[in-house]
Formats: sequence, structure tokens, C-alpha cells
Amino acid sequence: MTNLTIIGNGTMARGIATRALAGGHTIEILGQDATKARKLATELGTGVTFGTTDDAPQGDIVVLAVPFDAAKSVVSAYGEALAGKTIVDITNPVNFDTFDSLVVEPGNSAAEEIAQLTPAGSNVVKAFNTTFAGTLVAGESGGQPLDVFIAGDNAGANAAVSNLVSGGGMRPLVVGPLKRARELEGFQFVLMTMQANPEFADFNWDTGLLVTK
Amino acid sequence: MTNLTIIGNGTMARGIATRALAGGHTIEILGQDATKARKLATELGTGVTFGTTDDAPQGDIVVLAVPFDAAKSVVSAYGEALAGKTIVDITNPVNFDTFDSLVVEPGNSAAEEIAQLTPAGSNVVKAFNTTFAGTLVAGESGGQPLDVFIAGDNAGANAAVSNLVSGGGMRPLVVGPLKRARELEGFQFVLMTMQANPEFADFNWDTGLLVTK
Repeated sequence: MTNLTIIGNGTMARGIATRALAGGHTIEILGQDATKARKLATELGTGVTFGTTDDAPQGDIVVLAVPFDAAKSVVSAYGEALAGKTIVDITNPVNFDTFDSLVVEPGNSAAEEIAQLTPAGSNVVKAFNTTFAGTLVAGESGGQPLDVFIAGDNAGANAAVSNLVSGGGMRPLVVGPLKRARELEGFQFVLMTMQANPEFADFNWDTGLLVTK
Repeated sequence: MTNLTIIGNGTMARGIATRALAGGHTIEILGQDATKARKLATELGTGVTFGTTDDAPQGDIVVLAVPFDAAKSVVSAYGEALAGKTIVDITNPVNFDTFDSLVVEPGNSAAEEIAQLTPAGSNVVKAFNTTFAGTLVAGESGGQPLDVFIAGDNAGANAAVSNLVSGGGMRPLVVGPLKRARELEGFQFVLMTMQANPEFADFNWDTGLLVTK
């Protein structure tokens, strides 16, 4: 049984798949390009299936491991095929032209915009937007397990994503309702500007964000 | 020479003063209540002077270690007495009635609202809003030096606050212009809701926020 569908075949798809496999999940990779999806599935190992976004997703959890605009397109195209699913939005809607704001309005979030496009009975959960791909592959940052900030309106869906996170050796932190994605996206935008800033010579799209104690 | 004025005599004043003293700074504590200011100054040790907010601040850097509403009042009351100063805003403008939003509008920040009240020639810098008081006193969290996120529009003022931070054994991270305070305040709001949430039994207004590598 496939219980996790990952849409996308880039570095974030690879990172999340790596952690999910570590947690014993069964995965399918669906890409726009079947060749690329097959390549990633093959590299991930035995049992990972693949297909294209013309195929209906089989997983109970569907991770949108694609940029914001693509995520909206995928969700719109799937429509009712996503009914009943837990849909994980990992996007950071940064305005890459200016690198000075998000493309969503203040008081809104990519997660909420995506949720507007999903069918009744599905639940969008924000997660993995503060975990860079390389840290997901490694499963740690700075020698510590990754913190994964989770926001969503449905307790069952939040729990399913938390289980995915903890199964992969990371710490799930369910911070609140889906609208908290506003703050999660806002802060990661700041962290992304730091990676791009030569004054932070040590930060190269490879840092983690940890709540210490 | 007094080079740091701290307005306030609560736990954040104590925390920031502790780190500044570790860095060799000369400090005055100004409170609404002279008795409380004297008590904190005495506890901090020899050489820390005190006074009330009726006294003009002597420091080149003035830290507003008070809540958001009080910070606005202090800045308004001081007026031209703050000309030429670097003014450090540490506030988190959380709506404590609902604990579900900030009291500033989306697309604005406490730091920017405070800056609107300051005289020409002064520079507001956002800092220390993600460092809980106890971690400042300890100088670390989770066995690691504290990260202090800094946002401001004036490079010299940002550098002065960075020096204060690094002198106290912490890591300054200058994230960008003052408007980045929006994202810093937004994220700390989320972290504060987690401290208040019994599901996070380990988080008791004592966590740190670290960029790992």
C-alpha cells in the first residue's frame, strides 16, 4: 500500500522521501516528467514507485514538493482526486524578483491560498518549509535532529504529518492552525535572504532552524 | 562614561544588562520607579547607575526593555532627548487577549510603529525579541551561544548593536532593514504561543531559537 505520494522530483522531494523511507513509509513519486520521476524513484531504492501528475495520487498523504505556483496548478488540476487526502504544503512564496517580500499579501499565506483550491474533505497542512533539502537528506543539522514546524486546522491531519516527521527521526512541532503558516513563511523568507546574502558566508542554503532548551 | 541605557527594570532588562556587563559595557538603568531601578542596578553590581524615566538617557544605545505600549510612551515622552541615539526595540506586540494575532496590522511591526515616534537622527534597531530573559541571563540555550536577530535601516546602528551582542558572547545576525521586524515579531509570536501551550510541556518561556549548520 502506498501511503505517501510526493509530487515533484527535485531536491525537496528527495529530502522528504529520504526521511519518509527511514520511517518505513511506502512512497510514490509523481512528476510532470516520467523520466525524472523514475530516476528519483530508482535512486531512492527498491519499492518506490513512480508516475506522472496525470495519475491520481494513491497516498493518504500528498506532499506538494514543488514551488508555490506549481503547487496551485497541481491542486487545481487534481480537483476531486485529492478529496480525503492530507495535503502537505512545503512552499515559500518568496518574491524572487525583489527578494524583499512574499508574493502573498500580508495577512495571508501560500498554505491558505492552496487550501482555497482543495476539495471538501481534504486537509492542508503546512510543514517542511523551514527545512532545506540537504538537511532533510542528512536527517540532521548541526548534529541535532531537525525541527519541523507544522500548522493545520485538522487535528488528525496534523497528527498524520507529525507521525511522518517523527518516524523520520525529526521533531514535529505543531504550532497551531493553518493561518500560522503566515509566520512560518515569513520567517523562512528572512532565513532565505540570509542564505543569499554574502555577509553570511557560512549560510549556503544548508542551515537548520532549531528551538533549543 | 555610560554607553548603554536600559529603560525598564524587569526580567528582560536584567537579562540584557547581564550580557552587556559581560561585554564590558557601562550601564545605567532607568525605571518608572526609582526604588526598583536602584534594586536592579545594585543586584547587577558595582558601577551600574540608576535613575528614572524623568532623567534624560545618557547612553549612546538606549534599550527599551519594556512592553510595546510602554515603549511607545517612553519614546514619545523623551522626544528630542533621543536624538542621535541607537534605540533598541525588543518588544513582541502580541494580542494577549486572544493570543491569536499581533496588535499591529499585517504588513507593519512594533519596531516600525516605534520608529515613527522617534526624533530625526535617531535609529531604531530591532533586537532581542526572540531571546527569552532567562536565556540572556544564562548567556546560552541548549549549551550553545544565543542567536540574536537584528533588523535596522542604519548600518552604523546595526553594527553598534551587533557589537553589544557579540561582546556579550552571543551571535549577532543582521537580517535586513527595520521592516524585517515584521517577520521576527511574527515568528516569536508563534514561539510564545508554544510556551503557553500545555502540549509543549518542555517549553516554559525558556527556549532559544538557533540557526544551525
